Amino acid sequence: MSDSSLAPWRSLLAGALHRNRSLVYARYFQLATIAPDGSPTNRTVVFRGFLDPGDRVQIITDARSEKIPQLAADPRAEVCWYFPKTREQFRLTGTIEVVTATTTDAALQKARRQIWHNVSDGARSSFAWPEPGADRADAAAFEVAPLDKTTPLDSFVLLVLSVDRVDRLQLRGEPQARQIFTRGSDEKSGWDTREVNP
Amino acid sequence: MSDSSLAPWRSLLAGALHRNRSLVYARYFQLATIAPDGSPTNRTVVFRGFLDPGDRVQIITDARSEKIPQLAADPRAEVCWYFPKTREQFRLTGTIEVVTATTTDAALQKARRQIWHNVSDGARSSFAWPEPGADRADAAAFEVAPLDKTTPLDSFVLLVLSVDRVDRLQLRGEPQARQIFTRGSDEKSGWDTREVNP
Repeated sequence: MSDSSLAPWRSLLAGALHRNRSLVYARYFQLATIAPDGSPTNRTVVFRGFLDPGDRVQIITDARSEKIPQLAADPRAEVCWYFPKTREQFRLTGTIEVVTATTTDAALQKARRQIWHNVSDGARSSFAWPEPGADRADAAAFEVAPLDKTTPLDSFVLLVLSVDRVDRLQLRGEPQARQIFTRGSDEKSGWDTREVNP
Repeated sequence: MSDSSLAPWRSLLAGALHRNRSLVYARYFQLATIAPDGSPTNRTVVFRGFLDPGDRVQIITDARSEKIPQLAADPRAEVCWYFPKTREQFRLTGTIEVVTATTTDAALQKARRQIWHNVSDGARSSFAWPEPGADRADAAAFEVAPLDKTTPLDSFVLLVLSVDRVDRLQLRGEPQARQIFTRGSDEKSGWDTREVNP
């Protein structure tokens, strides 16, 4: 079996996920995007696996969140993912595709439905809550009966990050090890790897 | 004793730091800034306390890091700080002042020297290492004798974040609690507080 089609950083990231699996929050990372006024924004989101096949990273969000107009105006993003147990950081730089109820690409729509099906009842219900960021609604507005698992609400959005560059830093060891992976001309993997100073 | 001069989010952040103190990495947060091409960048940095007096957040970095030209072109930044134990997130939005060896403001220069004095020998030595991000240097280039604690190297830079807005999300509880603090007209604290939907 060959994994030559996988990006070289992918097995390193899989290793970090495995070795940090006892920490639920090792599956959280910080996603930076750009506001319409050009200022940086940054929030914690949950890793929802890779889009199969390939190396694109899946995230879910609410269609009414600030990320949506931001990404419509500028799809560029940088993920910063710190793994506490192994003390390593991955910075994933790329662009995000927004997959909504009206997306026609069948594979992306299938992935959106699959994740909707797999998340918890509580997570699904949150997409029927009042508008995020608006003045606090009454408690009753948050009481949502369990939703149908087969049809995502329109507010349920899948974000798919295509990664162009990965900067991996291992804090263990002195001096620390650091590699930068960029899409390149390597025939086998399609990625160039460079060892750099931390 | 009154703490009326402290921002209302400050005691909440102090509480989170205290309740997460068993986790060394609860003092790490992710800092998003803007690259010269307008794309978002994001990396983990270490909280170095508040600049006394007041609510400005201190971070240290290397003068040769990518942050420096980025902040010179655009001082806007957003910190995303997730506390695993209490499951709460603070997003701190503001602008960063860069304090270098040539900064003339006496209070800022004093803070820079104080932090240089307080960090570990290993942390000080890293500022004498070869250029961050350049092709990996030989191991010998990273062998640095302990440095004088009183005079920071020119590569040692203090970043001071002035916070204009704080977005606090508590994941515990359903629905989650979320408050947004903005600089405002409140006479006592100088901040407006709004409860919003998560």
